Amino acid sequence: MPDQQTMLSPQMEYVNPFRVMTVMNRAAEIERQGHKVVHMEVGEPDFPTALPIVNEAKNALDKGLTQYTSASGIYELREAIANRYQEKHGVRVSPDRILITPGASGGLTLLANMLVAPGDGVLLTDPAYPCLRNFIYMLSADPQLIPVSMEQNFQPTLEQLNQYKTDKTVGLWLASPSNPTGTILEKLRLNAASDWAKENGAHLLVDEIYHGLQYVEDLPSVLEVDDTAFVVSSFSKYFGMTGWRLGWIVVPEDFVETATILTQNLFISAPSIAQYAALAAFTDEAEAIFEERRKAFADRKSYLGNELTKLGFKISDNIQGAFYFYANISQLSDDSENFCRDLLDDHYVAITPGTDFGDYKAREYVRIAFTTSMQDLQLGVERMKAALA
Amino acid sequence: MPDQQTMLSPQMEYVNPFRVMTVMNRAAEIERQGHKVVHMEVGEPDFPTALPIVNEAKNALDKGLTQYTSASGIYELREAIANRYQEKHGVRVSPDRILITPGASGGLTLLANMLVAPGDGVLLTDPAYPCLRNFIYMLSADPQLIPVSMEQNFQPTLEQLNQYKTDKTVGLWLASPSNPTGTILEKLRLNAASDWAKENGAHLLVDEIYHGLQYVEDLPSVLEVDDTAFVVSSFSKYFGMTGWRLGWIVVPEDFVETATILTQNLFISAPSIAQYAALAAFTDEAEAIFEERRKAFADRKSYLGNELTKLGFKISDNIQGAFYFYANISQLSDDSENFCRDLLDDHYVAITPGTDFGDYKAREYVRIAFTTSMQDLQLGVERMKAALA
Repeated sequence: MPDQQTMLSPQMEYVNPFRVMTVMNRAAEIERQGHKVVHMEVGEPDFPTALPIVNEAKNALDKGLTQYTSASGIYELREAIANRYQEKHGVRVSPDRILITPGASGGLTLLANMLVAPGDGVLLTDPAYPCLRNFIYMLSADPQLIPVSMEQNFQPTLEQLNQYKTDKTVGLWLASPSNPTGTILEKLRLNAASDWAKENGAHLLVDEIYHGLQYVEDLPSVLEVDDTAFVVSSFSKYFGMTGWRLGWIVVPEDFVETATILTQNLFISAPSIAQYAALAAFTDEAEAIFEERRKAFADRKSYLGNELTKLGFKISDNIQGAFYFYANISQLSDDSENFCRDLLDDHYVAITPGTDFGDYKAREYVRIAFTTSMQDLQLGVERMKAALA
Repeated sequence: MPDQQTMLSPQMEYVNPFRVMTVMNRAAEIERQGHKVVHMEVGEPDFPTALPIVNEAKNALDKGLTQYTSASGIYELREAIANRYQEKHGVRVSPDRILITPGASGGLTLLANMLVAPGDGVLLTDPAYPCLRNFIYMLSADPQLIPVSMEQNFQPTLEQLNQYKTDKTVGLWLASPSNPTGTILEKLRLNAASDWAKENGAHLLVDEIYHGLQYVEDLPSVLEVDDTAFVVSSFSKYFGMTGWRLGWIVVPEDFVETATILTQNLFISAPSIAQYAALAAFTDEAEAIFEERRKAFADRKSYLGNELTKLGFKISDNIQGAFYFYANISQLSDDSENFCRDLLDDHYVAITPGTDFGDYKAREYVRIAFTTSMQDLQLGVERMKAALA
């Protein structure tokens, strides 16, 4: 037998499973026992992919578009994305700087490989999307975690950037809107981050995968203030294409060639049918569906926000995007993992412990997603009431 | 502007573009000028995806199966693959050991991250699939290249394994059938490689992505002789699903948990529609189509092999799988890159220089694919005749 201990690369020691997976597996077990579980743990919209996109996929299948595309993706799609940056953000991005990836996961794999070397440090917030840390660990580099609190809208301050950087720091990775906190970086903060990165010779990477799913008037892209920043984005959330595995990255002009070489090596290409189907995401018909869904998320947010507050969860009144509350439970429990386990085991409501997203006050927080129907949210609230009574 | 030189991770220096991409771009340019190019450079079957698979994809779309699947893939597909190992290779592989990946590229990314650390050495053949080297470079590790010649069927000998290993060696990566050489590892060689890996505490990884596309009676899987080996495989080649980006890996029991964590982090899941569609690849109807195509490849192989020999290319008479000739051109030219460029520019025939696959005698070799129609192959041969007259 191979000796797993000696064969695993040492960096594997640090790469963690998502705790939400454990929650989902336990929820599936409870469902197999015949109970209805309310799913407030899932980071995936409950809506199926919009019909215009599905129909376009069928067209592509009928046309036999089942072969590899060019490594950086079909040009029409890169153009459509570029047009969207122009329309929504008033910024001209050359389609050449946009590379289509197999999900944002593929984009992050590529950017991490391109920009991070063993021993490097990368500044990240704590809490943050758990994979971010893991991508850095996989490259034998060090996530440099900046604790961020509700009082600072869960985004780092300039003082903190200066405090947590070291001479190993090569990059600053931010998210707007952020998973799990639902907060954004306003233009002023993006400008400050951009200036800081330039002054410190660090690359700036902004996760914009929840763009479109916002509850504020103005959600700037970092590209509005800095065309040397790296962006990772996705068709999964606003465009509702999770299972298709389609995302994109935007890289500065000088990095296009290396990034293209990496797409060839890492992916050959993103899935072809998904790429052709995604062209329909830029039609008025599809946009109308997305906007309707965004309103549904906004309604759920108001309802759930009110109810959670009444139940004793402490939440930010400034959820600006995505579909999560990152709720403080210190009035309800002293351990988020126990809290989540009991809520699931005894009351069939699935939510995610803060420990999935970092260490900082992680036992005081849970992530509650509003990715399920209003009816289910109401049931979830009833059950939580009973649990906390 | 960001300074690309200082921002790129140092390992990027070693990651090369595929030269075949340059060939393909140049071919596209010539086509835009109105000329017909004969494509013998492409590593992708010319057949569209078989209808049963396309129809199953449409069914999945109609059912709304557009969300993430479980990270390791849908269980039915893993079972179908396990059954195939039983039927074709008489070996029982638990579906739990099979993880569905976004193409073999995704599988290689995962296995490299799991098994290779900075500074490690991994034994590879030269020539080999160019990405293999690059995956190792990306992890700041060292490909340890074993030169293999036509006389040894382009597969390494035991003496060479002992000669090229160092105390840094952690793994041995082989391919059967091999791209670009079309040769396989018979059971005896697989056994020897397996014993060698065990004796030397190295992991054994075998690229079996061309399995199914073989011209010999017996093409063993390494799993027949070693259930502690790692396998990377794919729906792209035999199953004709290139653009769908679907592959799988098989890992030893002890590595399932870590590999599953990596699928979560690296991919979330493989594309959902592709997974459901691939279930149809295991029907008799689809198998009949695949077998017909395999016969077409075999016919092309005989025709092209004869013609190339007449033209002065030196080729192995033992092409056992895949759809390539790795041909020695030393009677025709002293530089494969010039040879390929002239053939394309002056005679509109695209083939790939050996320099894409390594260094060893790379200027003496070219890869010629028979992934185009018999009619086009005939045209290609006529043009090569003219070129070499």
